[in-house]
Amino acid sequence: MKNQMIKVYKDLMGQNSLWAEKIRLILKESKVTMINLIGSPGCGKTSLLEKMTTLFPGKRDFAVLEGDVETTHDAERLNALGVPVSQLLTSGACHLEAKMVYHALIDLPLPSLKLVIVENVGNLVCPAEFDIGEHAKVAVLSVTEGEDKPVKYPLLFREAKAVVLTKIDLIPHLSFNKDACLNYIKQVNGTVPVFEISSLSGDGVHSLVEWIYSL
Amino acid sequence: MKNQMIKVYKDLMGQNSLWAEKIRLILKESKVTMINLIGSPGCGKTSLLEKMTTLFPGKRDFAVLEGDVETTHDAERLNALGVPVSQLLTSGACHLEAKMVYHALIDLPLPSLKLVIVENVGNLVCPAEFDIGEHAKVAVLSVTEGEDKPVKYPLLFREAKAVVLTKIDLIPHLSFNKDACLNYIKQVNGTVPVFEISSLSGDGVHSLVEWIYSL
Repeated sequence: MKNQMIKVYKDLMGQNSLWAEKIRLILKESKVTMINLIGSPGCGKTSLLEKMTTLFPGKRDFAVLEGDVETTHDAERLNALGVPVSQLLTSGACHLEAKMVYHALIDLPLPSLKLVIVENVGNLVCPAEFDIGEHAKVAVLSVTEGEDKPVKYPLLFREAKAVVLTKIDLIPHLSFNKDACLNYIKQVNGTVPVFEISSLSGDGVHSLVEWIYSL
Repeated sequence: MKNQMIKVYKDLMGQNSLWAEKIRLILKESKVTMINLIGSPGCGKTSLLEKMTTLFPGKRDFAVLEGDVETTHDAERLNALGVPVSQLLTSGACHLEAKMVYHALIDLPLPSLKLVIVENVGNLVCPAEFDIGEHAKVAVLSVTEGEDKPVKYPLLFREAKAVVLTKIDLIPHLSFNKDACLNYIKQVNGTVPVFEISSLSGDGVHSLVEWIYSL
């Protein structure tokens, strides 16, 4: 049989780009910036969002889309603080796709928002491959993960417009070499800004938020 | 056009099962046990293997297959300790497939080995979906990742024949609730043994190694 077409995988990626394009249009029309937060499981993405909320109690111009394989734990944590939040459950998938993000995005109160933060599924590999129409991918790396993750998972760190180094309050208890880590980041992305933060003390969170709102 | 078959994805998984089956045959013939170590980036998989090596300096009956997206860092760390080790680079892929493992396995000095430990790519999602012919998947979870990962990434913890809770020496510096974590593990896998270890002090590593060699 001639002219058989096998197109499953390519189509999926093509479809994703179409949805990402729709997201870009909506964000442009509503003048909303969208950030795609990507990091390992337990690297402190949700804790950072909690700290952003409690440090700026009056600030209610941002919403969160929580990506998880299962559970609504993270959305519940932010909902308890009064942040508009939706939970996106991938039911097994290792990353968020643009179609899912699109449907959650159009349900948000966009006219009252300046910023949407997407917390992707905890994973340093797959989410970096998917365009979800964001203005910036932000790589989140915890000091407990060791220095060399930027070179071991280079795609994310190459794609990122900023790197957030979390849990710096734990450095005294670790053998973590911060300079080595910063060098590894530089190795894959020479000019990317790095924000060193502690969501426990709040150190560094102001500068990060300032940078995000300047996008 | 009728009877068109779209079979890309299914075929890929089918192929994987065939290679996994070949691995099972080789392991059976050579009486070697194979463990598939799965956990987040930086959860302490390599450090555990280093500690296993230094705690049992005479033990030279195990080899390691190191799975990584990029770099040979982990293989170098183990090679420095005299462990037979091969590096499997996935060049972007988020998990090890059986075919890759097979080719590395047959190059190992199997007649002199009792155990092969595969350190999978740092990722709590995708590696759990792939059968690589192992005797047991072992889930590795660091206390720095928080309590709820077993219910947020349930497939791995359901598939695991043991859970290793790493970095327990850091608990005094964290707000980690160990009982809550153990309950979450029980929720997805009621009978799985949990080994609490510190690769810094060596605490708990003996019991884990004993369990592995009893498989």
